[in-house]
Amino acid sequence: MTEAAEISLTIPYPWTRRHLLDLESLSGDEIRTLLDVADQLKQATGGCRNKISLLAGKTCANLFFENSTRTRNSFSLAAKRLGADTVEFSSAGSSTAKGETFVDTAKTIQAMGVDWVVTRHCTPGTPHLLARELECCVLNAGDGPHDHPTQGLLDILTIRQHRGRIEGLTVALVGDIAHSRTARANIWGLSKLGAHVIVCGPPTLVSERWGELGFEVAHNLDEILPRCDVLNLLRIQFERQSARPFPSVHEYANLYAMNVERMAKAKSDILIMAPGPINRGVEITPEVADGPHSVILEQVTNGIAVRMAALYLTANAPIS
Amino acid sequence: MTEAAEISLTIPYPWTRRHLLDLESLSGDEIRTLLDVADQLKQATGGCRNKISLLAGKTCANLFFENSTRTRNSFSLAAKRLGADTVEFSSAGSSTAKGETFVDTAKTIQAMGVDWVVTRHCTPGTPHLLARELECCVLNAGDGPHDHPTQGLLDILTIRQHRGRIEGLTVALVGDIAHSRTARANIWGLSKLGAHVIVCGPPTLVSERWGELGFEVAHNLDEILPRCDVLNLLRIQFERQSARPFPSVHEYANLYAMNVERMAKAKSDILIMAPGPINRGVEITPEVADGPHSVILEQVTNGIAVRMAALYLTANAPIS
Amino acid sequence: MTEAAEISLTIPYPWTRRHLLDLESLSGDEIRTLLDVADQLKQATGGCRNKISLLAGKTCANLFFENSTRTRNSFSLAAKRLGADTVEFSSAGSSTAKGETFVDTAKTIQAMGVDWVVTRHCTPGTPHLLARELECCVLNAGDGPHDHPTQGLLDILTIRQHRGRIEGLTVALVGDIAHSRTARANIWGLSKLGAHVIVCGPPTLVSERWGELGFEVAHNLDEILPRCDVLNLLRIQFERQSARPFPSVHEYANLYAMNVERMAKAKSDILIMAPGPINRGVEITPEVADGPHSVILEQVTNGIAVRMAALYLTANAPIS
Repeated sequence: MTEAAEISLTIPYPWTRRHLLDLESLSGDEIRTLLDVADQLKQATGGCRNKISLLAGKTCANLFFENSTRTRNSFSLAAKRLGADTVEFSSAGSSTAKGETFVDTAKTIQAMGVDWVVTRHCTPGTPHLLARELECCVLNAGDGPHDHPTQGLLDILTIRQHRGRIEGLTVALVGDIAHSRTARANIWGLSKLGAHVIVCGPPTLVSERWGELGFEVAHNLDEILPRCDVLNLLRIQFERQSARPFPSVHEYANLYAMNVERMAKAKSDILIMAPGPINRGVEITPEVADGPHSVILEQVTNGIAVRMAALYLTANAPIS
Repeated sequence: MTEAAEISLTIPYPWTRRHLLDLESLSGDEIRTLLDVADQLKQATGGCRNKISLLAGKTCANLFFENSTRTRNSFSLAAKRLGADTVEFSSAGSSTAKGETFVDTAKTIQAMGVDWVVTRHCTPGTPHLLARELECCVLNAGDGPHDHPTQGLLDILTIRQHRGRIEGLTVALVGDIAHSRTARANIWGLSKLGAHVIVCGPPTLVSERWGELGFEVAHNLDEILPRCDVLNLLRIQFERQSARPFPSVHEYANLYAMNVERMAKAKSDILIMAPGPINRGVEITPEVADGPHSVILEQVTNGIAVRMAALYLTANAPIS
Repeated sequence: MTEAAEISLTIPYPWTRRHLLDLESLSGDEIRTLLDVADQLKQATGGCRNKISLLAGKTCANLFFENSTRTRNSFSLAAKRLGADTVEFSSAGSSTAKGETFVDTAKTIQAMGVDWVVTRHCTPGTPHLLARELECCVLNAGDGPHDHPTQGLLDILTIRQHRGRIEGLTVALVGDIAHSRTARANIWGLSKLGAHVIVCGPPTLVSERWGELGFEVAHNLDEILPRCDVLNLLRIQFERQSARPFPSVHEYANLYAMNVERMAKAKSDILIMAPGPINRGVEITPEVADGPHSVILEQVTNGIAVRMAALYLTANAPIS
């Protein structure tokens, strides 16, 4: 483990937030600071692989009220890479099942001496509630369809690593925008950094209201494809929309799946992203998922990087 | 992480026990030693927040046969604060489901080289059985309704931190005494240190036999309230008493809930405790739970402190 | 934690494998190397109890698609004893439930920067598939009835520690050979080191094809017993064979259980082994399980030893 004293980080913009709740309320400078620190920590850990002792002795608690293996472990690994300990709380068999309120559960965890509570909950705004009630840092790992800031950051970091910038790029989010916290996090983050954002999908899953907010709305992928620098292919969340009218999986794949034919019509340097887990043959075909334009696995690695940055910056923010 | 060499602990009474099974069999001097070491370790860890390397290289196994997130994680965090590793065994999907005996499971875990087995089981006496069969340390994290020694210790430590003593204080345990291991641990621990203990609740949940054993039995909270220095409000364990005659939740709250009206009749410096998870509106109202007399979250922090003390003392006891 | 610099290991045979997939494809020299390194690491850790920093900073991911507490924790503890971190992925609530392929799940975990993926899966050959697709090390923790190399190694290590050699010993595997990956791992490993292997059990559970492969097949334990140096009593896997014709539990115990009567007919220095969890009264009686010939708990400790060896050797193999 490399000693913390040997790591020197450059914080370009003064960071003052104790919590990371959403990207909507962050400034462009704050988002850039998170990305810059993520890049530095990725480098300091040999590509998110080695441990450094920057946060040794601290403890990160995962408090997840929705199933998650990937995001939960990504936060845990980010904490461990910086030398922190982790502890897992979940809803199954927990005190909330015995009648305890969500806030009481979180305050109890805080009283055990943890430094961060990382939380996922089906109700939008839950992490904001915790941030008002707790003194420790609160990191949002997804609150219903509302936001998922570290997912947005890892997507944006991956684009910036490949293109050197976000400003002026055309980025399309394709798929189930209506239910996607990943979409929201990307929309706010990308637009604050000056990208042109297109939300694209069937009318049942992409509201025209995004147009009123200043974003481009498209229902036909083939029409916008030639203009796109980046496609972010969202997973169709079958579990979220059973009761809605919706194109069938087969129809969806016909209209929106990225495949070899569509790749031929795209820019030669297009980036293909997906937050995963991917459904091969639904939103993306194997040839594209495993092809040279795909940066899907880099996104996973960058997930560790941005979560290290979020842990580091919030823990070092001044307590007001 | 602070080096172990820099920590010096004062052990006021020679500790010889390899196991912590219950408070009933401990002497007052032994209980005081646990509390004193807990205070010292709380201070050495900056209020149970920082790591020290006192038990580095050792391993603590949790072997829980009842659901628990809070107690299990409290033990894990206590172990990690002292530099030890932890490993989790649970009943679901485990070897006991394949026909293995409980003792064989525990011996197998011991053979993996662990230093402590922390166990919770619905059957009273299970930790005592393990202590006879294992060479490593055994810590009881709750054996049915029998005992829960670290819960008793954290309650007593919290009282002592506020009052400087236990002797001569009047402490009432209120609620479901019949099913509560927390009640038993408190009764034995407090009485050994010289407190006057009252067990209070509806006749269906408080046996008159406690009177025969020398404790005060009360069924009317309002009558005893003015005399009490401490109230410990036990959770009504709905899951344990479906078949019994019992006051309804509404009746219970009327008769036993601590609320603003009852607080007005209590001593001005009364301590309000609850082992948690609390049911707001049942045994305690939000005004009292969040009020200035409540030490509920301090109890949680002291849970780490007494578990650190139990881990430390048992690991350093001579092997007979 | 002892520094890595103070540990010097003797690798008798050059180790080049990045994966441990089965014992069938290893040479005798490779198996001996694993056993030799396991012995050295057991000694360096004070009998698998203390930590050394040989693999500090590395991360081991458990990816188990079948329930396991024992093997999973044994790998975790082995990793922790060598200073590595661990992270747990399981099938329940994971991304595969959302439509992700097994290989995509594993590649995602790899992209989080892990050094080993330890995998258990009901489908034979799954770890071999992962080894072709991943760049990190893959360790097989059981692939259906096919193989379970670390279980074979720990059994063989235990025999070698007691007898000083494997060559020339007569070892009988008794019980459900048909469904047992433990049996397969032992058969291949023992025969490569020169043991005489007998597979023994009812005709429904022991195929005559083992005879065609050069092993001795027996259906009557009492006939072969006087010749055996080692008996390895496999657990009857009731969960695997509901639909097959099979002796009842009572019949099985009559014919194959090791009990006091059978012990009287065995060699005076016979070793009694069982991979566990044991069913007392089925394949082994308590008198034998707890008797002086039983090395069942030593097998558990040696499980840590061989898993440390597998982690160490694969991590240090050259990347081709």
